[in-house]
Parts: sequence; C-alpha cells; structure tokens
Amino acid sequence: MTDLRAGALEALAQQTIELPSWAFGNSGTRFKVFGQPGVARDPFEKLEDAAQVHAHTGVAPRVSLHIPWDRVEDYGTLAKHAADLGLRLGAINSNLFQDDDYRLGSLTHPDAAVRRKAIAHHAECVDVMRATGSTDLKLWLPDGTNYAGQDDLRARQDRLAESLQEIYALLDPGMRLLVEYKFFEPYFYATDIPDWGTSLLHCLALGEQAQVVLDTGHHAPGTNIEFIVMQLLRAGRLGAFDFNSRNYADDDLIVGSADPFQLFRIMNEIVQNGALLDAGVNFMLDQCHNIEPKIPGQIRSVMNVQEATAKALLVDRDALREAQTAGDVLGANAVLMDAYGTDVRPLLAELREGRGLDADPYAAYARSGYQERIARERVGGRQAGWGA
Amino acid sequence: MTDLRAGALEALAQQTIELPSWAFGNSGTRFKVFGQPGVARDPFEKLEDAAQVHAHTGVAPRVSLHIPWDRVEDYGTLAKHAADLGLRLGAINSNLFQDDDYRLGSLTHPDAAVRRKAIAHHAECVDVMRATGSTDLKLWLPDGTNYAGQDDLRARQDRLAESLQEIYALLDPGMRLLVEYKFFEPYFYATDIPDWGTSLLHCLALGEQAQVVLDTGHHAPGTNIEFIVMQLLRAGRLGAFDFNSRNYADDDLIVGSADPFQLFRIMNEIVQNGALLDAGVNFMLDQCHNIEPKIPGQIRSVMNVQEATAKALLVDRDALREAQTAGDVLGANAVLMDAYGTDVRPLLAELREGRGLDADPYAAYARSGYQERIARERVGGRQAGWGA
Amino acid sequence: MTDLRAGALEALAQQTIELPSWAFGNSGTRFKVFGQPGVARDPFEKLEDAAQVHAHTGVAPRVSLHIPWDRVEDYGTLAKHAADLGLRLGAINSNLFQDDDYRLGSLTHPDAAVRRKAIAHHAECVDVMRATGSTDLKLWLPDGTNYAGQDDLRARQDRLAESLQEIYALLDPGMRLLVEYKFFEPYFYATDIPDWGTSLLHCLALGEQAQVVLDTGHHAPGTNIEFIVMQLLRAGRLGAFDFNSRNYADDDLIVGSADPFQLFRIMNEIVQNGALLDAGVNFMLDQCHNIEPKIPGQIRSVMNVQEATAKALLVDRDALREAQTAGDVLGANAVLMDAYGTDVRPLLAELREGRGLDADPYAAYARSGYQERIARERVGGRQAGWGA
Amino acid sequence: MTDLRAGALEALAQQTIELPSWAFGNSGTRFKVFGQPGVARDPFEKLEDAAQVHAHTGVAPRVSLHIPWDRVEDYGTLAKHAADLGLRLGAINSNLFQDDDYRLGSLTHPDAAVRRKAIAHHAECVDVMRATGSTDLKLWLPDGTNYAGQDDLRARQDRLAESLQEIYALLDPGMRLLVEYKFFEPYFYATDIPDWGTSLLHCLALGEQAQVVLDTGHHAPGTNIEFIVMQLLRAGRLGAFDFNSRNYADDDLIVGSADPFQLFRIMNEIVQNGALLDAGVNFMLDQCHNIEPKIPGQIRSVMNVQEATAKALLVDRDALREAQTAGDVLGANAVLMDAYGTDVRPLLAELREGRGLDADPYAAYARSGYQERIARERVGGRQAGWGA
Repeated sequence: MTDLRAGALEALAQQTIELPSWAFGNSGTRFKVFGQPGVARDPFEKLEDAAQVHAHTGVAPRVSLHIPWDRVEDYGTLAKHAADLGLRLGAINSNLFQDDDYRLGSLTHPDAAVRRKAIAHHAECVDVMRATGSTDLKLWLPDGTNYAGQDDLRARQDRLAESLQEIYALLDPGMRLLVEYKFFEPYFYATDIPDWGTSLLHCLALGEQAQVVLDTGHHAPGTNIEFIVMQLLRAGRLGAFDFNSRNYADDDLIVGSADPFQLFRIMNEIVQNGALLDAGVNFMLDQCHNIEPKIPGQIRSVMNVQEATAKALLVDRDALREAQTAGDVLGANAVLMDAYGTDVRPLLAELREGRGLDADPYAAYARSGYQERIARERVGGRQAGWGA
Repeated sequence: MTDLRAGALEALAQQTIELPSWAFGNSGTRFKVFGQPGVARDPFEKLEDAAQVHAHTGVAPRVSLHIPWDRVEDYGTLAKHAADLGLRLGAINSNLFQDDDYRLGSLTHPDAAVRRKAIAHHAECVDVMRATGSTDLKLWLPDGTNYAGQDDLRARQDRLAESLQEIYALLDPGMRLLVEYKFFEPYFYATDIPDWGTSLLHCLALGEQAQVVLDTGHHAPGTNIEFIVMQLLRAGRLGAFDFNSRNYADDDLIVGSADPFQLFRIMNEIVQNGALLDAGVNFMLDQCHNIEPKIPGQIRSVMNVQEATAKALLVDRDALREAQTAGDVLGANAVLMDAYGTDVRPLLAELREGRGLDADPYAAYARSGYQERIARERVGGRQAGWGA
Repeated sequence: MTDLRAGALEALAQQTIELPSWAFGNSGTRFKVFGQPGVARDPFEKLEDAAQVHAHTGVAPRVSLHIPWDRVEDYGTLAKHAADLGLRLGAINSNLFQDDDYRLGSLTHPDAAVRRKAIAHHAECVDVMRATGSTDLKLWLPDGTNYAGQDDLRARQDRLAESLQEIYALLDPGMRLLVEYKFFEPYFYATDIPDWGTSLLHCLALGEQAQVVLDTGHHAPGTNIEFIVMQLLRAGRLGAFDFNSRNYADDDLIVGSADPFQLFRIMNEIVQNGALLDAGVNFMLDQCHNIEPKIPGQIRSVMNVQEATAKALLVDRDALREAQTAGDVLGANAVLMDAYGTDVRPLLAELREGRGLDADPYAAYARSGYQERIARERVGGRQAGWGA
Repeated sequence: MTDLRAGALEALAQQTIELPSWAFGNSGTRFKVFGQPGVARDPFEKLEDAAQVHAHTGVAPRVSLHIPWDRVEDYGTLAKHAADLGLRLGAINSNLFQDDDYRLGSLTHPDAAVRRKAIAHHAECVDVMRATGSTDLKLWLPDGTNYAGQDDLRARQDRLAESLQEIYALLDPGMRLLVEYKFFEPYFYATDIPDWGTSLLHCLALGEQAQVVLDTGHHAPGTNIEFIVMQLLRAGRLGAFDFNSRNYADDDLIVGSADPFQLFRIMNEIVQNGALLDAGVNFMLDQCHNIEPKIPGQIRSVMNVQEATAKALLVDRDALREAQTAGDVLGANAVLMDAYGTDVRPLLAELREGRGLDADPYAAYARSGYQERIARERVGGRQAGWGA
C-alpha cells in the first residue's frame, strides 16, 4: 500500500487536465441561458478565469479554444496572454453548427459549396493552431437528420469521408485530427458520426494522425463507456476525452457528479492500460455550468477527475490480477472496490501542499476574492456564450 | 367492415386537433435556431398561419396560446381575429422557464417571493382565459435540479403542492388546470414532476378540475405510453395530449414520424376506452419545426394524427375481443395489425372531399401560394420564437 | 462531525436488512443456471446459510420465504429452526409465474378460474404467515402481454383490482400487502403493474394495509429512483425495498455494485425523510448470485447497504439545509459529496467490533470453514433453485 | 408506380428468409418455459415444421441449425431429410453458453484449457457444415462479466482475438465466419462483443471470410439500427441478420411486431444499398415464441419481413433522391412514408398466388390441420428446447 500510495502521488504530480474556454462563458438549454455576474466577455478574460483554476489546482495548464467563439485579431497575443498566466493553448475546436448554411449539414451537406465552406473553416483553425502552437484539431460533427428519408445516410458518409480527407490534408506533421462522435443532438433521427465505430472507421481511413474523441455524455443509455476506452486504447486511437456527466441526454453536467463510480472505472482502464501519461490521451473537460458559477464549477470538475484518478492508481493490480486469474469473482471486484472506497482527499491534499497549494482548491478560490472582483469589475460589454 | 368504415368516417368528421401558436414561430436546439423566410412575427400572424392548417385539413379549429410569447394589448381583439379566421383560442400555456428569477425553480423555489411571482403569472393567464373564452390552463413545470443535494426533493414537492393549490383557487368553474409531467430537461438530475404518477398525485390533491397532460416525448426510453393513456383514462384524469415524436430525448419532432405504430396504439386506447369525442381529452400538437417549414409541418402532423385515428377506428373490436377472450395471442394481435396495415388515405380523402376540401391538404397548401406570399410580404420585424 | 458519527453509529446499530431465502439457491439466466458446490437443498439449509450472514454481519436477522419454493410440511418447525439459528421469518412471497395456467396471466387472466387459483395461492401464503408470524405478504405480479392487442389493457386492470381486493380481504389486522411493480419481464409489451404510479393507485384503492415495494432493478433507463423513494414516503406508502443492482435490464446483481452512488442517494432520502427506523420500510435484498458464491455474495450485499447507510447518516443536514436555502448549488452538492467521499469502513468496523464481531465479515466468513464444510457435506439431493 | 410494382414483385420472388430450428422448440424466460402441444422433439421434426412455413410462404427454404441442440448421429441423413422436405440446411450456430465450464467465459476464459474446448466445439461445427453443405458458421459470443474488476477487459479481447483466429483457420474456402454482437445478457456488466464496432474490428483482423451479424434486438435503447446496417454495408461486412423485435431488452419477439416502421427502415437501407439479393446478406429469423404457437409465429414473422421488404421496394427512389438533393425535408420524408403507408398485402397475395400458394399463408396453415395433427401425434418423448 505504501508503494501504491507513493506511485499514485508520483503519477498525480504529472497528470494534466485541459480546460475548455467556453466553460467560462454562459451556457444553457434551448429554453433559457441564465447569465451570471462577472462572466468573461472575451477570450482574454476566459484565460484569466482558467488561470484561476490552474492556480488553485496545479493540474490544469492548458485551455482549449473554440473558433469562432474565441476568434481574435492576433492569436500570438492571445498565446502570449496565456503564457503570462502560466497557461498554454490546447486543442482548437471547430464549429460546424452555428452557420445558417449548415441547417442540413456541413461536411455531409448535399451541396458541395457548403461542404467547401465547412472545410475552409478548418483551414482557419489550422492557422490558429500554427499561431498558438496547438497540435490538436478537434472536430465534433453536429451533422445529422431529423426525419427518415430526409437524406441518404450512405451518401452522407461518403461525402463525410471526402471532407475529412481534405481536412486531414491540411495538417502539419505532429498535428492530430481528433474526431468526436455523438449519439444524438442537435439532430434527432440520425447523427452522421453517432458512435465510436463510425468515428474509428473514418480515422482508420485517414491515417495515423486521426484519433477518436470520447465525450462521456455522448452514448446511448446503459453503454459501458470504460469498455470503449479499452477498445480504443487497444486500437491505438484514443486521442482525447471530453469529460462531463449525464443522467439522461448530453446533460453536460460536472464530470463525476452523476456517477462517480463510472468515472473511476474509466480512469481504471486508463491506468490499467498505461495511458495516464505520455500515451497521447488528452484529458479535457467539456461541460455547461448552466446554474452554478463557472470557475468553482471547473475547480470542482478538476478535483473530481483527480479523485477518480487517485483511486484508480490505488488499485492493487497484483492482487487484482491474482483474483482474476483465480476466477474469484467477488475477490477481484473487492480489490477494485477497496480502492474506490478509499478516501483520497488526504492524498490529494498532500499532493497540493507539496506544491505550495491549499489542500482545498475550492475553498481557497472562494476565499481569494477573485469572484467578487470580477463581478464588480466586469460590467458592460457582452458576456461570452455559445453564440458569442 | 362497411360498418366500421362508416363509423370511422363519422367519428373522424367530429375529431378536432388543437394547434400550438409557437409551432409557427422559430425554434431550435441549444446550439442554433435557424430562421425561415416568412415566419410569423406576432400572435396575429401565427393565427393566420394556423388558419391555413385548418383551411386545408378541416380538423384544426383551435390554437393554444403561450404567455408571454403571445402577449397582446387586447386579447378580445386577438380572439376576434381568430374568429374571423374560423378559429377559436384554446389552452393558455404559462411560462415558468424564461425568467432570470427561475434559475433554481419557480413554483418550487426555496424563496417564497419567487413562488408568489410564478403564481401571479397564472393569475394573468386566467385573465387571458376569461378574455379569450379559453377553458384550459396548461402548466408545464420546468423546475428541477442539476445536482444531487442541490435542493431537498421532498420540500420541493411540498412547496409545489402549495403553489398549485393557489393556482387552482384562481380557476372559475368550468375551467381546468392541466398539469404536464416531463422526464427531464431543462434540469438533468431531477425534475419536480417527472412522471404521470407525480402529476396525478397533485391533481388528485387539487380536485376534479385538475387533469394530467401527457406529452408523448416526456418519458423514459422504452416506456409504454399507451398503458399510461389507459391508466389515466381509468382514473378519469387524462386532460390532454401534447403530441410529438421522439427517438432520444424530448426531440419534439413531427407526431407519428418516429414511430407511427406507437401513435396508432395510443389512438387505439383512446378509441377502445371511448375517449375520442366528448370525453374531455384535448388532442394538442406540441412540436418544433427546426429545419422544416412550419405550416406544412403542422399540416403533415394533423394528417398523421388523422391517419392513426382512422386506423384505430377500423379495428374490428368484436373480433379483437373474441380473440382476446379465447387467449389467441397471434389472432388478437392480427386484428390490430390488420387495421394498422390498412391504407387509410382513401378514407381520409373521402372525408375531406365530403367537406369540399382537397384530398391532399399538404399538396393543396403547396399549390396555394400562401408560403410564397408570406415569404415575400413578411419582411422586417422580428420573427416569433421561443424567446419572443 | 463527532455528533454525526455518534448518531450514525447509534442508527446503524438498529438497522436491519432482510435476506431472501432464494439467494441461497441456484439462479441464472434464460440461457443457463450454473450450479455451485454446497448450495442449500431445502428451506432448512437455506436458513442455515442465512444464519451465517447474520452471524458475521449482525444486521440480517430476518429471512423472506417464497412459496412454493420454500413449501414445507410444517411451518412451525421451520419457524422454530429459524429461531434456533437466531433468525425470524420475514415477508412471504407468492409465486404467480411458474404455473402452466399462468401463461397469459394470473390475477389478470381473462379466465376467472385462473384468477381464482391465483387468489387461492395467496390464501395459502396468509396461512404460512400465520404459522410463521410473518406480517408482510409480498406480491410481485409478473402478468403482462407480449404483443399489442393480445389483451385489453384496461380490462386487465379491472380484473387485477378485483383480484387484489380479494387478496386484501384475506389479511389479518397487522398484516400488510406489499405490491411490487416492474417495468418489464417476463412479458415484453406491457406488464400490468409497470410503475410506481400503477402500484400506488391499486394500494390507495385497497386501503391502509397495502403498500408499495420498490425493487431497485425495476425501472426504465435513467429513472431517478430516489425521487420515487421520496414520493412514496410522502404518500405514506413505501412498504419495502427489494435491493439489487442493474446496468441494463433487471440484472439482479449485488446491491451497490453497479452504482454505489445511487444506493447512497436512495439511503440519503430514507435518512432525510426519517424512514430508516420504525417507519415501516422493510429493507430487503433480492438478488441472483449467478456466478459468485451465494453466502459471500449476501455478506457483501449487506455490507454495501451498511456502507451506503453510514454515508447517508454522515451527511451534515444542517449545512445541507443552509446551502440549499441559500441557493448555493455547488455548496449543497459538496455537503452530500463530502459524506459520500468518506471512507466509512472504520466506522462499520467499530460497530461490528462493539458487537463482538470481526471488523470484516467477508473475510471472517471465508476463514470460518463453513463454505468448505457445506461443499463437502451437501452431496446428493437436489440443489434449491427457482424451479425447486 | 407500375414499374416500381413490377420490380418489387420480381425482387420479392427472389427473396429468401432463413428459419431457425430452435424456433420450433420451446423457449421462455428465466422464470418459466411454457410447453405447447405438438412441439417438435428432435431436429427431424423441427425440419418438418419448418417445411410447413416454407410450404405456405414460399420464401423460407433454409433452416439454421444449432449445435448441440440439433446434434444427430448422421448429418447426411438430416440434410437428406431437409432436401426431401424441399429445404436446405443453413447457418450452423455454435453454443458457448450452456457448458458448466463456461461460467466465466468461453473463447475469452482466463484458462487456456477452457478456450481450447470452446474452439474445438467449432471444429465440430465445421464438420457439420461439411456434412450438410452449410457455408455459414455463426458465432454469438455470450462471454462477459457481471462485476467491475471481475476480469481484465483488455486481456479478454486479446484472448478472444486469438481464439477467433484459430476458429477462422478451420474454415474451408467459401465458408464464412459470422460474428454476432450483443449489448448485454447473459452477463450484465460487460459483454465481450457488445457492439458492431467490436465485432467489425475482430472481423477486419481475421480476413475477408469474417462478417458481422446484426441481431435487431442486441442494441442499446434508442440505437438507430438502420444506420448500422448502412455502415456495415459500406464496410462490406454485413453477413447476416438475426431478425426479431424488442421493446426493452433482448425480448426476441416476432420481427416487426414492436416497431414495424423500424423494420421498414432497415429494409429500406438494404434496398437502397442494393443488398437484398446476391449481396451475401443472410436474412435470418431469431425469435422466441414463448406464449404463441411456433409454426404460426414463424409464418407471421416471414410475412412481416415480406411486407417490410415490399414497402421498401415501393419507395420511389428517383423522387426520393430529387427531394433529398433539393433539401426538401418534408418532401423526402413523404416519399418514404408514402411507400410505408401503402397496403402491400394485395401485392404479396399476387406474389403467392402466382406461385400457386394461398394469398394468406397464416390462414392457410390454420386450415391445413397440421397443427392438430402434430398435437395429436407427438406424444411421448421430450419436447425440444434450449436445453434439449
């Protein structure tokens, strides 16, 4: 156990989690977006907020951007701002769902002109990557149909394959194309990349630089997500996570809030398959803080990922393997549950204090006065949001 | 069969379907609302569009309003406009989800002042009912929580019960309070009226004027909706339907588009239990035409309900009962499937032509030039939508 | 925290969990029942196995019987055997699913003779209750249909209501009728008591001695079970739990194994609503140990319920209420999660050691030699199972 | 329309559907298997019953066998019996779920000896194929785990890959290995081939003779099955269907009974992608007639597939493509729905009468006296079933 604990501390010290810039803007449901005092108004302010999360947790040094929400005149300046805050810019997310031309699709649209437009948007994103030093181009395809017969499912796949090839061709060596799948929404009959199988088939056709993104909220009810994690690792194609929680649809709640045991099982597959560090898996958050404050919401999310990781690192893998080999069903399960039942907050407190941080990042942020300051200072302007 | 057909024609001639005013405004997902040319810009134009649906189908003489989306200076004028168009105003829908005060709830909010505001909104709605002659006050409670522990589930029920009592007390004799339930959205941990059982318990506590609304999109995956229809009829508390289709969440697609057999089974319970006419069940549409044109979308919806109803009316109930009593599983099912397999379009063509209407309302509308006219004329102003 | 801990210990000392006799017999899927060495061959041996669970955990003093699986010549002798082992006989479960006459239903069957037979079976069960001192008659209605139209859903409800009235009339004062609902299986179109609403309506019609049983595996995907717990407590009609786990269907896995956080949330509603002790809620297990050994499986199950209960008891309810009242979404959730994140195994070890038990019942049983002894001694005869 | 109708008739005349031998034996749930009078007692009688289905429908000339349920001394005699009845023997199904050794897995079992046994069973199946002229070896892997941690998910995949390679090596040229996936059951934490992606990855690793089987009941709630059909066709790896219906789990109801529109959409993808004839897709039934008679149940199933196929063949593909290309959402959907709304029973009556068959196979069988005869004659012996 001492060895496990020491090893866990060491791994946790190297773990990093990437924050999404859009978590610091307003979000909501189709019914209502509730504004909140002090919400960031531009990409620079979002980075400042993200820096708070990193300052208090010590493990969130990167921020994903979303284009066009984070479009700025000079990306070099933005990258410099990030660096000054102790951050780096992470994945660049393209947007294929907010242009009027995309009503019936983007990369799959029947009209080649619309597809070209959607492809060209990725050229802009790759330019942003070059300017910011980002290496991950993240593509969530929102395309789909609402009614049976609305379009030809097969033709859409073929058009998608062609569009993806053109985007892939834009990449520099060392860049990756991360392809996300989603069960449904914003279309409700069929989405064009609904599952990991479809995403993987496209990645395999593209080449080594194409990898799959697993968003924990993008599956059918009952799906065993850790199985998919294992399968994508086995295929060498798990590029990144979008972490969040769901109870029903793509609820985008705080990661670990709906089913902390699931998050633990996911991290357990990561650890079991040696993919926590240096395996090319980017651990990103993708959440909507619709009713809770954004920065504390992100801090809590980072803490939840850390706790699940810590528990996964505490699994006694020798004992586990022994019980599994012996066919000891309850014994093997008990090894896992022992780690899960462990209170890892003292371990994480030790990690943080070893870095000169407060043991409780959430409380430390609350005491810091930052929230009150931004609520006071950020008046005027337009709060950032999905439509911004 | 001749008798069945004649009886079906007679019942279909009396059937009515209520249209929602908001179907004629723009709607969308949390990601994007796509505008469409010619969309109505105010309640008067919505009624004009609804009148087209009625003019071509002959069975849609009522329109539900939504307050505040359909707020006007003088509801008498609006009712007069409806009457001039051959319509009546139907259910009045309150709105508890678009006020900043409702971030943590409305009728269930911990703060009594917020609850009072939400109750007062219903007093306004009852005033609208008096001014328009509407008898149905429809309440969908969007309240809920996103995180376990966020609020006390039981206390929320108690507050809800009190709020509903105050609203119920506002009703005139002859008015009904229709209480809708919803599995999830816009909150993702618990909604405060998630199922028919909760809705019914509150209605039973309120009194005879309280009835349940069944929205066909508001159930967990796999739920047998026709069973609930039967159960609410058995309890004497099925007040109304909100018809639409879902494949995944509350997709709000065109009724009958995702699972036409389910719609048939629902109408079969209605017919079997004698609730098609004069039983106090209001058959309403509640859909979002996010990508398709609104008026044709409503016409198609009305036609789908008519077709399902026609098939249900063609079920040979004597043969069905005989097979059921005999324990003839396949035979009883076959009686139902025979009716479902029947092409009822000729029957409905006969119904329409008997009224001097075109056999195909969808085609007739397309030929009418109305769509081109509104696209041409309705320039300027702001298109109606959920936020309007 | 000290107070919370002391209070938790006190409550945990009074908590009891009821074991199902059938957990000690073989079970399986429709594909295969795997036998296990040493499995009990009759009700007496089942009680001996159950006594082991109680001996090591100290909180499982009652055993539910299932008729006819546990049919014996003389129930007095069986009750005496239980008493000698330190146990009492708990709920009596009727069986409506294994008679050839019940192919199309039991209490709902179109044929009155079949219904009479099914009702008469409950008279036998009530006799068993009188002979054993049991006060709970538990009725799971497996009735349902596989095909639309197969039978009249409404007529089945009416027949069910009549049958239940006759069963209810059999009860002595002080006896309860516990009515369980189930989403699906063994029928796959509609079950006749599919949800808590249906169960509750029947209980309300019957009278005060009728209560609802909530089996944690009998819900649609995504259902918020703790909400139903709260709602049934609010209605004063939560009679009992059947505890188990599900990932997909009615998987009947070890309680707390699929989603320990859900079990915690359920126990949190129990504690929050004062229903842990003396509220008439019978906490029963209902599981299938298809591949794991039965007695250790039951011990693990009891431990899981204890751990969830302990965590629920550690929730700081003052702090929770304060955060809820203040609308502090993250703060309120954090109060809950703090309790959930606590390692309660030391607390439970203290509880057990205070009773002279081993801190780890699972390990203590493994060391006891009982498993080896029954495997050695119970040769010949027929192992008990669902068909026995 | 005339052309469509003529083309439909021509295609329907060539369509074939394969029957499962086990549909003619008893089946049930984990709770109960209800016997039925006249049920076949051995593979020879099963073939005689299957021949009735073919005699009345004209489109069911093949029967799948299941080993060991259909194990006989001399497969040549069985094949001869089939030929005498106008049938051929189809896919050979292996059985990996009814041996005591397979409690913790078969092809994935930690113990190499168990894996060897499971592989050897397929050698027997290939021998049966050689003796019967069958070319399809169908493998449904029931392996899985019930508890997190019970076994190493990744190691199980690696063992599975090795086992499959050994089985694949057994095949003669011209033989196919058909690999089925299943979401869950008989294990409830993770199945080892839970989805089409996993099945396809293994097939791609094996080679061209490995193809995927799509069982319509083996998906998560809400899964768009016709999308998977399209995707597997696009990958050139759709080997076969197991047709049945589900509302909840793997209900194994009559195909087309739960959602006839879904079956139509599936057949629509088949027709749209030119895979109805000569494309190597084997259209098989796989159902459980738990409460309805078996032969009529199979006849109804065949008719349901024919009706869905007929409707798919009547889709006006030119009009569909035109509407799709024009972005006419409602118009394109209407083309599909027009075909679906068509009553195809007259068309199928014409097809049957053109072959000298009765227009209504179900009624013709009922009149034939066969059911009464087998009920009279098949006394004694043991009825076939899953355990037989």
